[in-house]
Order: sequence, then structure tokens, then C-alpha cells
Amino acid sequence: MNAEIIAVGSELLTPYRIDTNSLYLTAQLNQLGIRVLHKAVVGDAPDEMSSSFRHALDRAELVVSSGGLGPTDDDRTRQTVAELLGRKLRTNDEILAGIRERFRRYGRAMPEINARQALVPDGAIVLPNPRGSAPGLWLETNGRIVVLLPGPPNELEGMFEEQVQPRLAKLGQREHLYTRDLRISGLPESEVEQRVRPLYSVYPDIDTTILAAPGGIQLHPRIWSEDARIAEKLLDEIVQRMALALGEHLYSTQGESLEEVVGRVLTENRATIAVAESCTGGMLAERLTNISGSSVYFLGGVVCYSNNLKAAFVDVPPEIIETKGAVSSEVALALADGIRRRTGATVGVGITGIAGPGGGTPEKPVGTVHIGIADERGPRARGFHFLGDRDRIRLQATQTALDMVRRYFLFPSHGRA
Amino acid sequence: MNAEIIAVGSELLTPYRIDTNSLYLTAQLNQLGIRVLHKAVVGDAPDEMSSSFRHALDRAELVVSSGGLGPTDDDRTRQTVAELLGRKLRTNDEILAGIRERFRRYGRAMPEINARQALVPDGAIVLPNPRGSAPGLWLETNGRIVVLLPGPPNELEGMFEEQVQPRLAKLGQREHLYTRDLRISGLPESEVEQRVRPLYSVYPDIDTTILAAPGGIQLHPRIWSEDARIAEKLLDEIVQRMALALGEHLYSTQGESLEEVVGRVLTENRATIAVAESCTGGMLAERLTNISGSSVYFLGGVVCYSNNLKAAFVDVPPEIIETKGAVSSEVALALADGIRRRTGATVGVGITGIAGPGGGTPEKPVGTVHIGIADERGPRARGFHFLGDRDRIRLQATQTALDMVRRYFLFPSHGRA
Repeated sequence: MNAEIIAVGSELLTPYRIDTNSLYLTAQLNQLGIRVLHKAVVGDAPDEMSSSFRHALDRAELVVSSGGLGPTDDDRTRQTVAELLGRKLRTNDEILAGIRERFRRYGRAMPEINARQALVPDGAIVLPNPRGSAPGLWLETNGRIVVLLPGPPNELEGMFEEQVQPRLAKLGQREHLYTRDLRISGLPESEVEQRVRPLYSVYPDIDTTILAAPGGIQLHPRIWSEDARIAEKLLDEIVQRMALALGEHLYSTQGESLEEVVGRVLTENRATIAVAESCTGGMLAERLTNISGSSVYFLGGVVCYSNNLKAAFVDVPPEIIETKGAVSSEVALALADGIRRRTGATVGVGITGIAGPGGGTPEKPVGTVHIGIADERGPRARGFHFLGDRDRIRLQATQTALDMVRRYFLFPSHGRA
Repeated sequence: MNAEIIAVGSELLTPYRIDTNSLYLTAQLNQLGIRVLHKAVVGDAPDEMSSSFRHALDRAELVVSSGGLGPTDDDRTRQTVAELLGRKLRTNDEILAGIRERFRRYGRAMPEINARQALVPDGAIVLPNPRGSAPGLWLETNGRIVVLLPGPPNELEGMFEEQVQPRLAKLGQREHLYTRDLRISGLPESEVEQRVRPLYSVYPDIDTTILAAPGGIQLHPRIWSEDARIAEKLLDEIVQRMALALGEHLYSTQGESLEEVVGRVLTENRATIAVAESCTGGMLAERLTNISGSSVYFLGGVVCYSNNLKAAFVDVPPEIIETKGAVSSEVALALADGIRRRTGATVGVGITGIAGPGGGTPEKPVGTVHIGIADERGPRARGFHFLGDRDRIRLQATQTALDMVRRYFLFPSHGRA
């Protein structure tokens, strides 16, 4: 079965807002074995909307829309679809009573304008909305299905799971989608692509999406199949061969974030960690602690922007800063070693660098970052030169630091050399 | 002039990737006085793509597409549009030589498959692409314009600015778009909506988009007008009335982030700040330091997850933790006061709370957060109960802390009371 998704709302045609409901809907539909062939965004102009729904019904067996079910003049999805399908709209007394009751619960009288939300096209199934006042609608016409959902994500998602998913599941698709989620660190997108591209022709039935996300590169091999066993076997094979091609740059085959993997590795090694950051300003600590349960292995961190605090918080000797500069491998080593000693952590990490846009010099341009790691055998450091704006430089610095910690535990012969 | 944007790429029909080029294109087109009436996303199936372009040409005077100009079999935008418009494709020798030269510069021979990128439909204007191998195309047909741009954002944006913007600017639109960007903190979206909604009918020509972004609520009043003076005057008026309705919750009328505003306020007051965080794990320091130049006012911070470090880093008396618990207003006060004393900052901020999902109790459920602010006259604290997942709770905690700092300086009679 093929589907088209239509997002209704003139705010989605501004530079400020993007339709993200379609990502949720696509994931759900794919899981049911339904492919999404087309997505559209339209405003509230009736002609535009009507044209979108008409073309969608020409192309797809299932049309799912979000938005435009509210009570105002701008909410025209219900009317537009009813007219397009030649169905009369009639007030459904049960819905009307429900909406009135909803307002009464909040201590308000229902504005008359909301009565519009109780209009139901002939032959439509009403999809109750316990999370809002706009009910959804399920219509069938000439073997095609049209599902109208409300725009607010929590209402849309709740209604899909409770009302739409079970109805679509009953249709029983022949083919289903099988997928994997690989995460890579330390390689640019083009290099990842070059390494895995030869596999595409070996597995022509597998489509692979590559995604350069802020936290690293992601690979999503996907296959539509009638046979789960065959699909899983092919995916296992391609993942195995991708793993060989990517080596230790591959940090997860299950869609984990790097901070999740680092947390797991630390836990498995009964190790603790503490961090001392300068240019990343707390981002490394923030990433480590956005994993629930991180208090088991994360002891704490300091953000020492000023040179005074580098000495006061983690005992960086002022003479090192004077002779080598605050951005130097020596200071990275001292930060890592100092925070380790102060906290008693198994591993200390230190970051110092120039995130820009100001502060660069010819010898130490913006993007220069030194990262140190210290354990009981002493610290070591590496220097980097990251490209991009302040945000990107800080993100790459923390990503690299996390990856150094991961490799330190997983490939001790490299990391501890 | 009305436009439709088409994003081409089967990866944009997966749950992993979203078309963000259209946000950039919408902003650019709006600035030129061109309205976007419809957006579409299609895969690489020729029928689907052809149908999308056909319908777009029926509806809009300008069709801008992104993607599908690469060298592979899946890149079919060029062919599809040429066929739809009945134009022959011919190899353009100059483009071909340019692509060959580009590969030579990288020390590689051009794969024969790339010759496809030198195909140009009859009558098309070639848009050079100095950032990649795929040139863009500008076609005119029956008074309509079709612009084909490459998918990678840096190539698309560079080509738009250099090749498309000047050509479209020459068309000279009668109406232009005028807009404002208001930022609000400390009110839920529904409350913001309720306060400003009465203004909508007073200014019927102004469309206002409300956006609940992670960093607070945004309001974007927009007006299309032939007269800049009238438009700006109306916007000034509605902004003034919105400001009255929103009171001190409005923190910017120029689209600044809260951390930018706090940075400005600290700089204006020649004040410095330091932070001691528990549940937010470094996010507050990270946000304060993602502003370039923040080293002027941000001295440093500590992330003290463990109770030991709360004592070691900022002298939180262990007996307070024992009697009141680590999540208490007393500990928030001690954190704020301790970090202020340790760093010598004008203002110290302390945050302690339960970000979840674990760690909640009936008396102190997940989402309980205490925030303290200390200055030379001593500390004060407020308790909050935030809803949502770990990420949302941490984000709201830092947002609230930043807002408390802003109000502390701007409305001393409230904050210091």
C-alpha cells in the first residue's frame, strides 16, 4: 500500500516552522508495511488544499493529513475534503456534547464557533480525540482511504496509535520494512559514503540513507520484504560488511548516541569520569549527563573559562599557561589530570581550545582544540583543528572527546599507547 | 508572485530526514516578495516526480526544486523536467569540461556517469555550481519559471544567492513581506496565545505565527504590503501592544536568544556570573558560553553531581544535604552562594533537581527543581515543578534560571525583593 501525507497550515509555509508530524507518520506507516511516496504542505486557501487532496487521491491508496481541524475560519480541512468527495456535512450530536463537556470541565462555555468541530461528512468514521477538542475522521472512497488528524503532535500521535494504527494493521500488508541504524564517529560523510558505497550494488534490494547529524554520521540500511527471515539475514550481512569497512569508527549498530555508548563502556568497566572544560563551556558534561543513570559513572565537572579558575578548580600551574598558552596540549593534560585528582575519577578529560569567532591567531586559529585524557598511568593529549562556526566547533570537540574515551576503553592498545 | 517548492530525494521520505532547504528558500523568496503557496517532497520515481512538477506548474508561477541533479540513476530531476516541458537534452561541452576539470583538481578522472550532469534542456540557462559538480538550471515556459537547484544545502544556498536571487530580484514584486520576531519566557503557549489573540482582529492584515520552540515561545507577526512605511508602522503598533500584553515575559523583540539577552544585560551592568549545576549537568554553562564574547562576563561553573563534590567544589555543608536533601531550596542557595564566593562573580546561580526518569519520590517527584541566585546581599531561591522528559526538564530549568538572572537585573524590585 502507498500513502501520501499532507500537512495543512499556513504557518508551515513560513520560514519558521517545519512539518515534523510527517516523520512520525512515516515511521508508523512504514512499520505497518505502508510506503510513503509523497508529502505535501499546504496553507489554508481552499483551492490549494482541494488541489492537494485531489492529486493525492489520484496517486495514493491512503492519504493522511494533519492540521486544519480547529474551530476557526482558517481550519478548512473537514469542509474541503467533504466537498471534494461530495459528502454532506452534518452535526454529530454526540461529538457536540463531548466538546461542550470538555469546555465545561475547564469551567468555560463552549464558544459557538467550536460547533464546527462536530461536523461529520456522511459515511465517515469519527476518531475520538481525548487530548483536544478536534475529533479526527476516517473516510473511504473508491477503494481509497482518507484519514484526517489534528495538527498538535500529542493529539495526532495519540489518535494515530489508538484509532488509526489498529485499523490500518487489519488491512495486512504483504511487504514490511526492515531497517538498521548505524552510528559512526571520526569520519567525514564523504569518507563513510566511499567506504560503504561498493556494498550498494552487492545488495541491490537494500536502500541505504546516509545522514550527517550533529552527533556524527548515521547509516540507515532499509529493505522492503515479504519475508522477515530473508530481510533480517540480508541486513545482518550488510551491517557486518559495513562494520568491516568502517572499523573502529563504527560505534553503534543499534542507533545509540555516542554518550550512551560511553556510558555503557564506563559502566562495564566499573569506571568513573570527570571533565574539565574550557572552550566547550559545559557541553561535554551536559552530553554525558543527558543519559539517565549517568550519576553512576559521572562524578562531576568544571567549566574554567578564566585562567584563574583553571588554577583554582583543577590546579593547572599558572606557569604552564604563561609559557605554553591557555590553548595548548600541556594545559589539556593539566586539566585532565587535575580534574581526575580532584574528583578521584578513573578517567579525567580536559578540553581547551578556541571556539571563535574571535580569539584566533595565525599560530592558533579558530578551531584549534586540545583534548587530554588522564588515568592512573598519567595523561595524554591530542591536538585538533575543527572547521565551522562556534557551535560546530564545540560540538565536534565534545564528540571527539567522547570518542577518545570510548576508544580508550575498547581499544586500549591504541588509546593507551 | 506565487511559488511552489519541491524537494526531490527518496531519503526525504524516510523517518530520518526532513527537507530543511525549503525553510531557507521560503525566507529568501519571501524577502523578494514572493509567497510560497505549496511545498512537496517526492522520491526518485519518475511518475511521481513528473506528477509533482506538472501540478506545481498548474498552481504556481515559480517552481523551485532541490535535489536529484547528481550523477546516478536515481538523479532524475533534469530528465523529468525536460520531458515534462518537451525540451531536448543536449550535452553542454563547457559544463562537461568544467566537471572534468573539477575531478582533475582532486586528482581523479571523471567517472563517465558524471557526463550526465552536463546535459542541458534546450533553452535553459545554466547556473554554475562552484561548490559541487551539479550545475543548476533556470527554465521559462508559458510565463512560468522553473529553477532546479542541487540538494546539498551549501551548494543550494550559494547558487541561490549568486544566480537565482539577482534574477528574481529583477522581476520586481509589488508587495513585500515585513516581519518581527518576539521571544517570550515564563508563559505557556496557550497563555501567550490568549493574551495576544485579541490583537489579531485589530490588525487583520497581519498574520501572526506562534511557535513553541525549546528555548521559549516565539511570535512572528508578518504583513505583506506594497508600502514599507505603512507595514513597519503597523508592525511597530502590534509589537507595542503585544509587549503590553506580555509584560516582563517578553525578553526580545529582535529574535535574540535568552542567553544573548542575559549576556547583554550582564555586560551593561558590568557584572559577572558563575554557576553551580546538579541536574542540568552543565547545560546552563553551555548555554551561557555559546554566545561569542561570553568570556567577558562568564567566569566559570561546576557540575557537581555527587554530594561530595558539592562540598568540595562549592562548600555546600554536608549537614544541609543530610537534613534537607540534595534537592532542596537550601542546597540551591548554598550552591549559588558557594560558586559566587569561590569565583568572585557578581552573581552566582545554583540549580538542583530531579531530571528523571528515575530518582523521583512522592514528596519530590521527577521535575522538582530548585534554583538559587546569590549576590552580595545574599542568596534567594525558588522551587519549580517542570513537566516532560529528562531533556525537557533540564531545558526548562536552564531557561528559568536564565530568565531569573534577566529579571534580577531588569526588574530589581521583583528579583531582589
